[in-house]
Amino acid sequence: MNSNITEYNFPEDLKKMSLEEMELLSYSIREFLIDKVSKSGGHLASNLGVVELTIALHKIFNTPTDKIIWDVGHQAYVHKILTGRAKDFDTLRKLNGLSGFPKQNESPHDCFDTGHSSVSISAAAGMAAARDIKGEKYEVIAVIGDGSLTGGMAYEGLNNIGDSKSKVIVILNDNGMSISPNTGGISKHLGNLRTSKGYLGIKKFIKSHFSSKQNFGGTLAAGLADFKNDIKYSIMDHGGVLFEELGFTYFGPVDGHNISELMDVLVKAKHLDEPVIIHTITKKGKGYINAEKHPGKFHGIGPFDPTTGASLEKSQGISYSKIMGDVVLKKALDDPRIVAVTAAMGEATGLGSFAKHLPSRFFDVGIAEEHAVTFAAGMAKEGMRPIVAIYSSFLQRGYDQMMHDVCMQNLPIVFAIDRAGCVGADGETHNGMFDLSYLSSMPNMTILTPKDGNQLEAMIDYAFTLDSPVAIRYPRGNTDYDKNITSTFDGKNIRIKTAGKVDIWACGKMFSYGEQIVNLLNNKGINAGLVDVATVKPFDITPFDECKGRTDLILTLEDHSINGGLGQQLSALVSGENVHVIKFAWPDEFIPQGNFDQLIDKYNLTPEKITERICEELERKA
Amino acid sequence: MNSNITEYNFPEDLKKMSLEEMELLSYSIREFLIDKVSKSGGHLASNLGVVELTIALHKIFNTPTDKIIWDVGHQAYVHKILTGRAKDFDTLRKLNGLSGFPKQNESPHDCFDTGHSSVSISAAAGMAAARDIKGEKYEVIAVIGDGSLTGGMAYEGLNNIGDSKSKVIVILNDNGMSISPNTGGISKHLGNLRTSKGYLGIKKFIKSHFSSKQNFGGTLAAGLADFKNDIKYSIMDHGGVLFEELGFTYFGPVDGHNISELMDVLVKAKHLDEPVIIHTITKKGKGYINAEKHPGKFHGIGPFDPTTGASLEKSQGISYSKIMGDVVLKKALDDPRIVAVTAAMGEATGLGSFAKHLPSRFFDVGIAEEHAVTFAAGMAKEGMRPIVAIYSSFLQRGYDQMMHDVCMQNLPIVFAIDRAGCVGADGETHNGMFDLSYLSSMPNMTILTPKDGNQLEAMIDYAFTLDSPVAIRYPRGNTDYDKNITSTFDGKNIRIKTAGKVDIWACGKMFSYGEQIVNLLNNKGINAGLVDVATVKPFDITPFDECKGRTDLILTLEDHSINGGLGQQLSALVSGENVHVIKFAWPDEFIPQGNFDQLIDKYNLTPEKITERICEELERKA
Repeated sequence: MNSNITEYNFPEDLKKMSLEEMELLSYSIREFLIDKVSKSGGHLASNLGVVELTIALHKIFNTPTDKIIWDVGHQAYVHKILTGRAKDFDTLRKLNGLSGFPKQNESPHDCFDTGHSSVSISAAAGMAAARDIKGEKYEVIAVIGDGSLTGGMAYEGLNNIGDSKSKVIVILNDNGMSISPNTGGISKHLGNLRTSKGYLGIKKFIKSHFSSKQNFGGTLAAGLADFKNDIKYSIMDHGGVLFEELGFTYFGPVDGHNISELMDVLVKAKHLDEPVIIHTITKKGKGYINAEKHPGKFHGIGPFDPTTGASLEKSQGISYSKIMGDVVLKKALDDPRIVAVTAAMGEATGLGSFAKHLPSRFFDVGIAEEHAVTFAAGMAKEGMRPIVAIYSSFLQRGYDQMMHDVCMQNLPIVFAIDRAGCVGADGETHNGMFDLSYLSSMPNMTILTPKDGNQLEAMIDYAFTLDSPVAIRYPRGNTDYDKNITSTFDGKNIRIKTAGKVDIWACGKMFSYGEQIVNLLNNKGINAGLVDVATVKPFDITPFDECKGRTDLILTLEDHSINGGLGQQLSALVSGENVHVIKFAWPDEFIPQGNFDQLIDKYNLTPEKITERICEELERKA
Repeated sequence: MNSNITEYNFPEDLKKMSLEEMELLSYSIREFLIDKVSKSGGHLASNLGVVELTIALHKIFNTPTDKIIWDVGHQAYVHKILTGRAKDFDTLRKLNGLSGFPKQNESPHDCFDTGHSSVSISAAAGMAAARDIKGEKYEVIAVIGDGSLTGGMAYEGLNNIGDSKSKVIVILNDNGMSISPNTGGISKHLGNLRTSKGYLGIKKFIKSHFSSKQNFGGTLAAGLADFKNDIKYSIMDHGGVLFEELGFTYFGPVDGHNISELMDVLVKAKHLDEPVIIHTITKKGKGYINAEKHPGKFHGIGPFDPTTGASLEKSQGISYSKIMGDVVLKKALDDPRIVAVTAAMGEATGLGSFAKHLPSRFFDVGIAEEHAVTFAAGMAKEGMRPIVAIYSSFLQRGYDQMMHDVCMQNLPIVFAIDRAGCVGADGETHNGMFDLSYLSSMPNMTILTPKDGNQLEAMIDYAFTLDSPVAIRYPRGNTDYDKNITSTFDGKNIRIKTAGKVDIWACGKMFSYGEQIVNLLNNKGINAGLVDVATVKPFDITPFDECKGRTDLILTLEDHSINGGLGQQLSALVSGENVHVIKFAWPDEFIPQGNFDQLIDKYNLTPEKITERICEELERKA
């Protein structure tokens, strides 16, 4: 055995390994993961949980011919190690480095890029359908956590496969967790399965008690066929009847840390020609005591001390999330109508203390953004004042519900949209680049973009005074916040500095860039004004009045895609006013991973580069 | 009994009726529905199917105190009759008339506005949660069809209620149909339930065979508790184990046309303090032979002859849907990679003949837009060239999947977006007013807007030549199409008429308005140019070159909301070019029901009114 995980030639070397060697390998992989992720940060607990499962999958199946789709995808580190990418782990989640998620442009072993939850079964169904049309033979395997199974899309996928009878292997990686512990009926169902004797155990019990008891009496004969069918469900009992009813053959529960047992069931599944679901029980954080104890903390984590598990990140300021959670809790203690809803992101969106202090008014509905939004709509219809806290990128799942159930009925719901804009290391799938666009077309929606913690606080106050939907979008990370200051907010855009030859309209995180650019332009003798675009919708255009006759050039700054956001909207509003609007925003592409400052530089959005561009434009005009 | 349905004082009069009177009432209601809908058009078959169910609901429950949420909502006609709105049926689906869907602004008995599928359970969950927080007592009832149950959101709702144990009554109205016959594992499951002996039948069987058979032998004792649990599932057997596993008490199947049986089970449900699901079996079109035979045709229908069932609509031209379906079938016969996907809208989107001729390459996944999109992504990853045909308004459900699974991987999928823009009589919930906006922010997406049938055909050809996602959005209804003409299309915007003082940029259905406005302006001595904006993204701005130095004013015309569409995008693109862009589009509100021409007039978008507005603007400038 190689002791250094980077010296193997995977996946080939795995194929030659004995069971004992694979078990040793699982230790080496865990050591490697803890070492690397403690330096780079990343998703640790979920990967520690799938070490044996991933080894068994690559032992039995042959990627890239066989397709493995990793739902959500943050648990694909072991898969990356076993497909030749261990050597790249020093670049994990860095600009131009190894992604923390499957990426087809990184390896042919990554067959479908993921990042959002509950897509793997649908993608697998599509791949299997294509395979069947082409008459080819290979396996399509979806690996999905029990958390992702709370998403309705997973059910739509199961429902479709169960009907088509197309051969797909669904591996249910059941660790009882999403980002938060799971909730919901399906979760309880899985809980029952987990503590049951399992498929084989129950089957044996039934057999031993019935094979010698055929003396039920004559009247049984007529009903025997029916009864046998009933017994089928008894056998399944806690064992996957729900999945059987949807048309799957169910195997489980299987110990997800027993390579031998896993290989056994994977071989069985391989030889069947029908949809199969394999229910494996794993432990999130397995093999690393700190992560086993605190799987939530080690779900996604920055650099940490591998011995103590203590975070090595120096934190400056306070996060937008924490401010939001604290402010809403404080308001809710005074207003019994305020309720909080989230979709498996309670702690992460800052609602931890709300959940603790007001548990009966806190609703974590699981990874189910569609339901979360309409559930809140139902509460609002009955007089509650819900706040719905979801990441920008994940709220995309609730687009139709926001439009159809909230805005169409003009219901007073506050959307606390966290992780809006560029999120950094998580990359394309987690960037919240599109919310200003998708929210702006929703009638009745108010859209607010705080530039700091105090403004966020004031905006939350303001939002609860409106009788209509309000979205407050703010970025990942920390901000300035002074508890002793009480900011006020009245829904207007705010002129901060008198309009000059140039006027700068900036929102949210980019407001501070606006301040810097004003100074840089001043240093060059160019007089520039500044507007805090706190309200993107309804767009308050009054600060423009001052520009007339003074300003040739407006520049807009937003931590958002260039399409459909602040810049485009302002351009349309001032059309015909003889002023040129230049938009600074992320380009119309998916912005990759990297830290925020690196990406800002890569896309020429630093204050210095923007200032340079403006000066060029002014020269061109002159 | 009153013979005229409009003379009752409902719901009060219903409360006094005997069973026999209610049965007679069901006949009167059917007669009334057939009479009224044959004149106005509307959703007939689904309403005929819920006559007895709605009578029983209003007999046992008291709206508006108790809340009944109608999923999708097109089956709420009987509810409207029984809540005092029979007299308004002559205005059904007309401008300012009675809506074909529940509307809170129409009656306090309509507690939640619906139109899209699968929202009722989530809304009910929210209303029940609010009720419980407030400590009030009333019933919340979601009425949902088996078709809507294929939507993942319904499952998210069930999952959440099953966990919270909040009292909600879900009525599963099982008629085996959505717009198309249903598909999927859950549908087969319901099929089994439908033909089973039902809850009580099986329970009786088990009891008779086990109560006298306690001589199982000593070894049984230890396992008896487990076995009893097993038996629970045996009893449920075909009877709702899936729902029981999710945490519901299941009653059914119940004959949905038997008022007495329905009342009995509703009373039972009322007295339980836990989530209940009642499975009723109904017949779509019940009691009207033409609709029973052709439930699809009578799902949503225009005016018809009540005796023969023949449509009275005079059809001019050919529908965009039929052209799309025929063209794609023709291409698919030559290209084995082409597959078609829809979400319970096969016939309605024109894919009927595709399904008939190429059944193995046609996929109706049920009301499951999220799955439909990612399923297509899976097929595209494996070399297929899917076309996904879904109405604009319903595709909103697949927003995240289009962004995350299709555009992020830049997969070659053609989205045939039907019913884009104003749909007329179906109103707010069905208008496809937002697609240009939500599609434009998606990187890698191409957006095409055909102005007629021939251009649609050419665009489909073009779309399949691209290796990236393409959306083609076209309106409900008919268009000009000449089979003998072969149009070509190259992805560019097309200058039709040389730019003048005014330039008109129009897309899709509004292009013909552009032609009319050019003529009206010419008649007033104003020279106007015309551009066919066939491609909204990537926006081809080259026809603008001709405007420079010539054109003061551009007007944009689009059958779309004013935010985020053609006009706003063009404004931003020509900022700084000294031209004023005036946008003509639907305002930033939900556009109500009415016929297209009436609505165009109401919102001042007729060619005449637009021309007038332009002339005023030119005078102002001069």
